[in-house]
Formats: sequence, structure tokens, C-alpha cells
Amino acid sequence: MSASGPEVLRHELDEDADPSSLIYTFGGVEPVVSIRPGTVVSTSTLDCFAGRVRSTSDLVSQVCDPRFINPQTGPFYVEGAEPGDTLAVHFVSIEPRAAWGVSTTVPLFGALTGTGFTALLHPPLPERTWFYEIDRVSRGVHYAALDTDFTAVLPLDPMHGTVGVAPPLREVRSSLAPGDWGGNMDTPEMRAGVTCYLGVNVPGALFSLGDGHARQGEGETCGVAVECAMDTVFVVDLIKGVPTPWPRLESDEYVITTGSTKPLEDAFRIAQVQMVRWVAELTGQSELDAYQLVSQTTLSPVANVVDTVYTMVAKVPKSVLGDVLVMQGMHARMKGVAAAWSA
Amino acid sequence: MSASGPEVLRHELDEDADPSSLIYTFGGVEPVVSIRPGTVVSTSTLDCFAGRVRSTSDLVSQVCDPRFINPQTGPFYVEGAEPGDTLAVHFVSIEPRAAWGVSTTVPLFGALTGTGFTALLHPPLPERTWFYEIDRVSRGVHYAALDTDFTAVLPLDPMHGTVGVAPPLREVRSSLAPGDWGGNMDTPEMRAGVTCYLGVNVPGALFSLGDGHARQGEGETCGVAVECAMDTVFVVDLIKGVPTPWPRLESDEYVITTGSTKPLEDAFRIAQVQMVRWVAELTGQSELDAYQLVSQTTLSPVANVVDTVYTMVAKVPKSVLGDVLVMQGMHARMKGVAAAWSA
Amino acid sequence: MSASGPEVLRHELDEDADPSSLIYTFGGVEPVVSIRPGTVVSTSTLDCFAGRVRSTSDLVSQVCDPRFINPQTGPFYVEGAEPGDTLAVHFVSIEPRAAWGVSTTVPLFGALTGTGFTALLHPPLPERTWFYEIDRVSRGVHYAALDTDFTAVLPLDPMHGTVGVAPPLREVRSSLAPGDWGGNMDTPEMRAGVTCYLGVNVPGALFSLGDGHARQGEGETCGVAVECAMDTVFVVDLIKGVPTPWPRLESDEYVITTGSTKPLEDAFRIAQVQMVRWVAELTGQSELDAYQLVSQTTLSPVANVVDTVYTMVAKVPKSVLGDVLVMQGMHARMKGVAAAWSA
Amino acid sequence: MSASGPEVLRHELDEDADPSSLIYTFGGVEPVVSIRPGTVVSTSTLDCFAGRVRSTSDLVSQVCDPRFINPQTGPFYVEGAEPGDTLAVHFVSIEPRAAWGVSTTVPLFGALTGTGFTALLHPPLPERTWFYEIDRVSRGVHYAALDTDFTAVLPLDPMHGTVGVAPPLREVRSSLAPGDWGGNMDTPEMRAGVTCYLGVNVPGALFSLGDGHARQGEGETCGVAVECAMDTVFVVDLIKGVPTPWPRLESDEYVITTGSTKPLEDAFRIAQVQMVRWVAELTGQSELDAYQLVSQTTLSPVANVVDTVYTMVAKVPKSVLGDVLVMQGMHARMKGVAAAWSA
Repeated sequence: MSASGPEVLRHELDEDADPSSLIYTFGGVEPVVSIRPGTVVSTSTLDCFAGRVRSTSDLVSQVCDPRFINPQTGPFYVEGAEPGDTLAVHFVSIEPRAAWGVSTTVPLFGALTGTGFTALLHPPLPERTWFYEIDRVSRGVHYAALDTDFTAVLPLDPMHGTVGVAPPLREVRSSLAPGDWGGNMDTPEMRAGVTCYLGVNVPGALFSLGDGHARQGEGETCGVAVECAMDTVFVVDLIKGVPTPWPRLESDEYVITTGSTKPLEDAFRIAQVQMVRWVAELTGQSELDAYQLVSQTTLSPVANVVDTVYTMVAKVPKSVLGDVLVMQGMHARMKGVAAAWSA
Repeated sequence: MSASGPEVLRHELDEDADPSSLIYTFGGVEPVVSIRPGTVVSTSTLDCFAGRVRSTSDLVSQVCDPRFINPQTGPFYVEGAEPGDTLAVHFVSIEPRAAWGVSTTVPLFGALTGTGFTALLHPPLPERTWFYEIDRVSRGVHYAALDTDFTAVLPLDPMHGTVGVAPPLREVRSSLAPGDWGGNMDTPEMRAGVTCYLGVNVPGALFSLGDGHARQGEGETCGVAVECAMDTVFVVDLIKGVPTPWPRLESDEYVITTGSTKPLEDAFRIAQVQMVRWVAELTGQSELDAYQLVSQTTLSPVANVVDTVYTMVAKVPKSVLGDVLVMQGMHARMKGVAAAWSA
Repeated sequence: MSASGPEVLRHELDEDADPSSLIYTFGGVEPVVSIRPGTVVSTSTLDCFAGRVRSTSDLVSQVCDPRFINPQTGPFYVEGAEPGDTLAVHFVSIEPRAAWGVSTTVPLFGALTGTGFTALLHPPLPERTWFYEIDRVSRGVHYAALDTDFTAVLPLDPMHGTVGVAPPLREVRSSLAPGDWGGNMDTPEMRAGVTCYLGVNVPGALFSLGDGHARQGEGETCGVAVECAMDTVFVVDLIKGVPTPWPRLESDEYVITTGSTKPLEDAFRIAQVQMVRWVAELTGQSELDAYQLVSQTTLSPVANVVDTVYTMVAKVPKSVLGDVLVMQGMHARMKGVAAAWSA
Repeated sequence: MSASGPEVLRHELDEDADPSSLIYTFGGVEPVVSIRPGTVVSTSTLDCFAGRVRSTSDLVSQVCDPRFINPQTGPFYVEGAEPGDTLAVHFVSIEPRAAWGVSTTVPLFGALTGTGFTALLHPPLPERTWFYEIDRVSRGVHYAALDTDFTAVLPLDPMHGTVGVAPPLREVRSSLAPGDWGGNMDTPEMRAGVTCYLGVNVPGALFSLGDGHARQGEGETCGVAVECAMDTVFVVDLIKGVPTPWPRLESDEYVITTGSTKPLEDAFRIAQVQMVRWVAELTGQSELDAYQLVSQTTLSPVANVVDTVYTMVAKVPKSVLGDVLVMQGMHARMKGVAAAWSA
């Protein structure tokens, strides 16, 4: 960062692009731009339906092509990123682009229905679309029932469901899938103020993001959050020579790990083993002691139980870890960059 | 409740009882006492090791008999309780009896080890015991690592891991198992100020409780919380003619459902379906609308991933439900009884 | 066994008994009779509906009381059986009592429907009953479709779905549940000519059996096999001082282990670990070598994916084990008793 | 096929190729050759270690690069194949190229060990390699224990663990993964004489195969079969306009479906739903009737419980389906081509 403030990249989104021209994978696509570590990126993301669902009469199965769901913005080539490094992405702001969002049921998708993987003989649940007004000033997301006149105002809590890099082993993965490269984890922890750490698998990392949610419950039970296009600002940086096996996050108060697989207890196990090892490393404790400390202090919210595999989160308050230096102090430094940019 | 305040039962615990004389099942044992709905019960519970683990040199496999783990206090016969009713138990206070607690690893038990059910060829992890000092005034639980000099103070947050009634279908279940009768759910939500609702399966309900924890992480990862004997006060009441298929809880801020089974996603599904139906009933919404509202608002913390089956929790803030009457207003009434008793 | 042949017990079944007077649990009921090891028992079992479903117009939800499903014959108190012993039960013959059987769908039960544990928002699948004619001479089970005129003749292959002893830890378990005490494993391997080994948990073992199937597919996909009352002859014996952690079977050609839990991969793991350890013990190989040999030779058919937990089987041909003595030669000895009885 | 017999392609394998020059994915690589439907392909495959493990002193972690495991032969571009078609591959012969095979344990891989996905705190099991002599005349696979002098001769039963096409949704998947595109299903049903049906996702289908096993147990418990290079002959054909959602197989006696996901019960559900629908279509029965018939007749062996997701198989004997025409009679026609080629 120079005295004149951080380098800033504005990456414009073409909201009227044909869905078939957008990108829907991690890996397998050419980077849109190359950026230096330390850059502040100001960009936008389409909603998971590429804007095709706009009212309660738009049903996903009618207005969307199943090949073109969950478009991503990117990928960004990060200069100097090599396999074995960690990419750090600090979310400065995530704000709905418009004053509305939608949610839906989708046939054979969701946690409380038979699906293509929990294959059953039931016909699909009814397909419906809910329209939400978003008040960006009062920070309210307005729910209105379809079958009665019940309404409720829910807190606006914007986040990105899908954040990731190109996967290892030459794989190319759909933006519908979560895994160790990140992807469609759908955790509400991915909000502004948080730093996300992702292991780099290919030169340049090839970072992308999308799937903005005005808010979601833990688990994303029906499979669809309050989906909306987002204006997002993030800072990108690198931690050279430090691998990160599974995506991690850091907020001012918590260190956070994730695990994505099925069954859900295995996703829990991944997140917890990652946390035990991280706490051992941060505090200098033995693995068994860290296992004990994590067992008494972890919060363990579900992220999603609806995607191709499921995602669990483990959160341990930094306050119980003592005076530790997390990821070489990256979170604090990136907050500084964000502050410099805001100023 | 008469003008002179609620009826109060003091049920004394014999802390020096031989472990083989205690009770370890839900169902299959005679009630210790009969109580009327509305009664305030003041009693105590032993820790899950019946007090046999008292220092870092006490290993579970050496000092405990595997047939005598997790003794329960009770069962209490509730007058008038019949199958199809709901038992309400409001926890007035849950306080450690002594200034210490213990946690341990147990061979082939816990979420991050092979077990008798996730059967693998690994030898067991090392067996260890951690000793915690509990400061009941400053409300701190003092952790000390075994292999280094790392220490931390964790917030005291007392709760009961095991709370339940006799199961249906003439079954008798070990106090190590959770299920639709309650039992060893190990959710930190079971704390003072909360009301627990349990479906009645047999005349008198036969309510028992035990397994006090000074605190635990969500998931109880290593299988053992900060275990301690408790002094506990609770109020018991009945909701006649209202069945409760899976245990529910209510706090001032949340309605809470539980589900217990494996794999963990099925426990999630049970808790979420219970919540969708409860929200539909409370708000008059259709089931699909309730599915949508729950999807955007639920918190979904893990309870345990270590017991014979696993337990998930769903929590929805009452604030998004409007002006609803939960369980005929039982929670508020029981808080009133608690206040009268305290006075 | 005296020169005059084995001791024989004929235990008569009251087919017209009221369902509420029958037994539906393992544990929790008094033995019907005491028998000496070596006894040949000739008895009968009711079908899982206690005979209440007799035609395509009898629907389970209309003619059966959910509290009275899957009645068992027994329990038999085996003299001398103590915890830590193994009970051996050799099935001499299992024959349908009548020339018919039934199968059904049951609302919210089965592998391809939402259930009480895989809780979803779908309404139940339609409830239907299929009637099978059983030709005990030609050994055919006659299937007739309900909605078309399609018919097929399937091979008669009679077996018991439910075979077990009283569980450990003072538990009483429904006859709908499988576990380490046996119970409702629903494996087609439990046929005549096979010896079943069960660990003894309580004095006398308290052996019961029921749930006869004229045949079933592996997995019992819809949850209900071709259910029929059975005339069954079995020999009972004891292997003193030899524990059996999970039910095992032995045929002339195979050693067979079982595991019952969820998720299904954990049931697989239990059965495979049991087999690895059994093969290591039988052949004197190290555990890793046995792991290798089992990996290349095991057959791994599903038993059931529909009961309260699921059951997997592992089968290794004796031919690859060399000249081994299985369970002290019990299978051959019991076949001798059976032959003596038949003579 | 002309009077002069089927078209034949001989595709030579370079056994000394550098592992980094081979292909390890389904999708993402250019076809090696274009073939017409009806062609007989005679080719070879390397073993999953690319021939790097050749004796008991070769440990996978020492001689193999984890980026270069399970090389595939192909992909073959099939002329005329379009999304929505079905590719039929009939295996004429699968024969070990040499008189030996190997199996191993691999750290943190296998069904009876903690893994990267069933993440636990155990250290890995010991790493070992077993060497098998293969007698191609007597058809024996010679097992020798490492820690004792135990030996056994197992039946030779050659098969391909990995068979598939390019996946849908622009994904590129590692050859270690099974899924709806086929891939690393590891079912012993994939042997000579069988026809495999795969849904086409991209123009030309891009069929590849590899991972030959001299034999394997059901489940591939330790994660590694008796691995060997293979000489393989197969016929390729197309069924235009018929989609196949999940890989299916057909032998002279059985129709066979597969499902690949976790947990294992969901893989079972996929295979069973596919079979129910296939049986309904083949016999003209209603879906509920087919559900019933499959429930009484399916064999349900495990394929693998070790790969990135698990694979289950469902097998129904054609004998219970009456006089049905499976996949337009493709299996019989391809056997005819194979016979013409052999002549």
C-alpha cells in the first residue's frame, strides 16, 4: 500500500449479460483480470438465478435453464499465488444492489424433500416463489406469506453463499458444490468484516464469488436464501508458504473453520479437527489439550444441508485463546487497508 | 398454587450411594415420589461418573464400572400425566454443588475417534482427565492444559445434558441414549430460565434428569463436558391433550425444537420439520410458508455428535412470529411460579 | 444328547391370541420356558402383523394397532447362559404355516419414502397391500401386481427377520429395532441350515424370534417382506466364556458378521471390523493381514435400510480361510443334532 | 457391422510413459481417437499406481505422486454421441497383462480408518504392500500374509474399477471420484460379459477406463483391490435419444443399477429408485407395483465404501421380469459383435 492508499480495482458487472455467457464453475475458466496482493476490489455479483426470478409468478423451473444456475464473478488471478499458499479475502462491504430479493422452493432440492441424492418415490413439493422487499436504510428484509396475510420483518444480514478458488487435482467444480476449495458453502458467517482464508491450488488462485443472500437461516433449509444481486468490496492478500487445507474465516471475535462433505457428522468432524489443530498451533498446546479446550468452547452452527455436500462451521472465541497471532496478523492488517480505502 | 405460594418438594440426593444402587435408564424403574402439576422440585444430581472421577489421575476406565455411567435423579411420577399429554419442566436454577468439575477422554468414545459404532482399526486415543476449578461467584470455569502451562477462564453456563421421560413402546433406554423421550440430548440450551416440553408416553410420565455440565461446546466434541454435580430447582406442569412428538424448549427469546438420530442430517431434518410445523401452527401459516420463514430465520446449532445417536437443535426467534401464544402460555406461567418460589 | 436322541421341546403358539397379550420387546418380559443347551425347539411364529393383514383390502394403518407390531415367540431361558457367553441357535427348518403371505407399504416407513427419522414435508406414499400365494411344494412365491395383470413367480426362501436376546445395560428394546442383541436385523441369511451366534447379556440369554419372511430382497426396500407365520425348528446351545460383540452367522460355506446402526457406512464398518478380527483370530494372522484378506474376499450385501437402524452383513467364504475351527466346531455339532432329530 | 466383421481399433498403451503425461480426469482432456458406434476396441490400462508399486517394499506414499494416481486410458470420442443419448460399452474380455498384482494400505484412505473426510485425531494405520501372483491359466490369485506364513488362493475375477464419461455441468472430475458419469465406482460387477450403460453429457461422450482389479471384495474395504494392468477388449455403441441418469449394467442374468453418494443409504436409495423406475418401464407396471417387486427380489451388494463418495449396486434377475426388451436389445446385439470379433 502506498501513501496514496491501497490499489483499487473496479470490476464492472454486465447485469444484462446472457446467462450462457457467464461462468458457473471453479476452475476451467480464464481469469477476468490479474490483481496484486493488497488490492481493494470493488465489484458486483448477480443473484443465483442470474436475475431471472423477479416476482412470485416466476418459477425457477420455468424461467431458469438448469445449466445456468449460480453465476460467479471472476475469476481473479492473484499475482504470486502458488499452490501451498493461502489466499486471504477480507470483505469490506456486501450490500444488496436493489431493494428486493427472492426465495423459492425448487423441485427435488432442499433439506426437507427428496432430492436427486436422497432419492425417494415422492412427487416434488409444490414450487413457489417468495418476494422480499429489502429496506437498505432500516436494514429490514420484509417477508410476506403467500397463503395468508402473515408478514414479518427480518434483520438484513448480507453475505455471499459462494466464495472459492480453483480446486486441486485438475478438477473443475460446479458453483453449486462446496468443498475444500470453498465454493457453495452457504454459511451466514461470510459477511462484511470477516476475512476468509482459502488454500491455493493453482497458480493465481483464481478466486471467484457470487450467490449473495440478504440473509439466510443456518442450514438454508429450503435450499434457497433471500437471494439478491450484491455490490461487494473486498481486499485480497496472500500468506506465502502457509497451506490451508479447508476454508477458514476470522472475525474480530472468532476463529472459524469449515468442513464440507456428507454425512453431516463428517462435515462436523472436518471442521472440528481443523479447529483442534489450529488451536493447538495458535496456543502451543498439545493436540489432546486443544481437543479438550475446543470441546468446551466451540460453537457449531450448520451452514447448509442442501447443496451437493453439506457444510458445517466451528467457531471458537479468540478470548479463550489468550494473546495469539492468527495468520500472521492478516485480519487486522486487512481491516487497516479497508479503513484506508473507506477514508 | 395457593395464596401461600407454590407447592415445594425437596428431594434429597444420597451422594455416597453405591453406584449400583442408582438408576441409569428412562423407563424400567419405579418412581421415587409422586408430585402434583405446579410443584416446585428442589433436588440434586450426581455427575455422569457418579463422582468417581475427582482428579487428573482418575481415569474413567479405571475408576468407573461401564454399567454404572450417567446416574439419573428420579423418576418423578407426575399426577394426571397420560400418554398424549405434554410435560412442561421449567428450570428455575441449575448450580454446581461443588467448586470443581472434570472432563475426560474415554477410549472409543467421542466425535473425533473411532467408536463402537464408527468401528475402525485404530487403537484408542490416549485417556486423560482434565480438572476444572469452578468459581461460582465470578462465574468462571478454569481450564488448565495437561501438557503445557496454558490456562483459560471459560464462562460458567450450567445445564443438564440428560432430561427425559419413560419412552414409548414399552422400551427401557439407557441414560446414555437420546431420543424422542428426551434423554441424553446434551444441548447447552437446557439451562436455567428455559422450559422443556416432553411428550408423555406412560402414566405419570416418569421424569428424570442428570448429567450436569458447568459448560459444554456445541457438539460435546470429545464426548465429555465439564461434568459436575448440580443443585437444581425446577417446576413441573402438564398440558393436557397436547402431544409433543420430539422434545421442545422455550426461552424468553426463542422457540426451540430438537431431533435425535443418525446421520446428523436426519437429526437436522427432524428438528426442522418439527419447527416448520410448530411455526405453521403458531402463526396460522401454511406449511410451505412456514418452511420459507423457518429457512430464513432458524439457528441450527449442534447439540451432540457423540452419544448413541446425535442431537440437533433448531431455534427461531419469537420476534419474527408476531404475537403468538406458545403452549398455552405455559412458559410465562411457570416463570411466575418460579418468581413466587424465589420470593 | 442321550442315545435316544436330542431333547425336544414343542412350544405351541396360540394363533388366536389377542395382540395385546403377545410380546413385542427384547428384554422386559418373563421367559415362557426354560431349556437346556442341546435342546431341539419346535415352535411357531406369527407374522409381523399378528395375522391382522390377510387380503389386499387390509391396510396396516386400519387393521393394526401401532403398539402391537412384530410379536415374538419366546423368550426362552437357556439354562447356564451368563453374560460373556455366546448363544448358538441352529435353524433346522423354517417353513410357512400357511399357503399365503402379504406385503404392504406402510405410511412413512420404508427406504424410498420420508419417515419419522428422515423427516420431510412430503405426504406419505399411497398405502397398499399385496397378497402372495405360497406353493410349499413347488417352492414358489406368487407375486401379482395390483395395477396391471403382471405376475411373477419368485423362489421361496424362508427366513426370520427378527432373532435376538435381551439387550445389555438393562435396556428393553422394541422388536422393531436391530442392534448388538440381534433383533430386527432382517437379513435373508437367517435361513434354515444356518447357525446364529448371539452374545449373552443377561442370565438365561432370553432368546426370542419372529417376523418370518417367505422371502425378501436385500435391503427390504419398501420396509415389508413377504410376511407369513412360520413353523420353525431350531437347536440351542452355549459356548461358555466366549463373548460375541455383534451377531454372527455360519453356514456350510460362509462365516458371516453383522453390524446395525446408521448411517449405513457405519453398519458396514461394524460388520467389516468384526470380520477382520474374526478372520485374524481364526487364521492366526495379524489384524492388518486379515484386513487385506477380507478386503479381497468379502461379500457385503445389505440386510435392511428401513428399520430404526440399518443392518449390513459381511460374508467370507470358509474356503479361503484354510482349515479353521469356527466357534469350537459348533455348527457341525448342531447339524448333527438336527440330523439326529430328523431321523 | 459389415460381412467382413466389426470394425476394430487397436489402441496401444505406452507402459513406460511418465505418470505426469497420463490422464487422471473425466472431462477436461482431449480425445485420443474418434470411433464409430459398433467398433471393437482392443486396448490396455495401467494399474492405479501407474505401475510404480511392484513389490512389498514399494509403499504408495514413497513411490507415487498423489497428483498422479489412477491413470485412465482414453478418452474415446464416440461419433454421433450427444447429451441425452446412452453410451453402451460391452466388455468382451478383461485380462491381467502380467502375472502379478499388488494391494496396499494407504495412509488415511480406506473404510476402516480415519480419512480426510471422516476426519479423526488418530495417526494413520501402518502402510503396507501385499504382492499377489496371478496364475492366468488356473485362474488363481495367490495371497500371502506379510506377518505370518498364511497363504490362500482366491479366484481370479478381473474387472475395471473406473469406467466413465465426461460429467455434466462443465465439471471435470478426478478419476478417484465416482458419480452419475460413472468414474471410480469400484464394483466387481464390471467384468467381461457385461454391458455398461452411461448417460452422455457432452458431444462424443468421451469414454475412458482404467483401474483394473484381478479381484476385489464388495466394498473394497481397505481401499485397494488386487491392482493390475489389463488387456481389455470392449465394444462401443449408442442408444440415441434415451437418457440414463445413473450408470446401469446388464449381464445375461441381471439388470443392474448403481448409485454413488454419501451417506451409503443415499447411494442405496439412488440405485433402488433407478431400479424401481427401470422395472416399471420394462414391465409396464405402476411405480408402486415395481417398488413391491423390487423389494422382494433385489440383491444389494456394496461396491465401494472408500472413494470420495460411496457406490451401491441393485441387481434384479431378469427371470422375474418376464419377456422384456432391455435397452432395445443392445446387450444381445453387442454379444453378437463380440462373437463375430472372436471368430
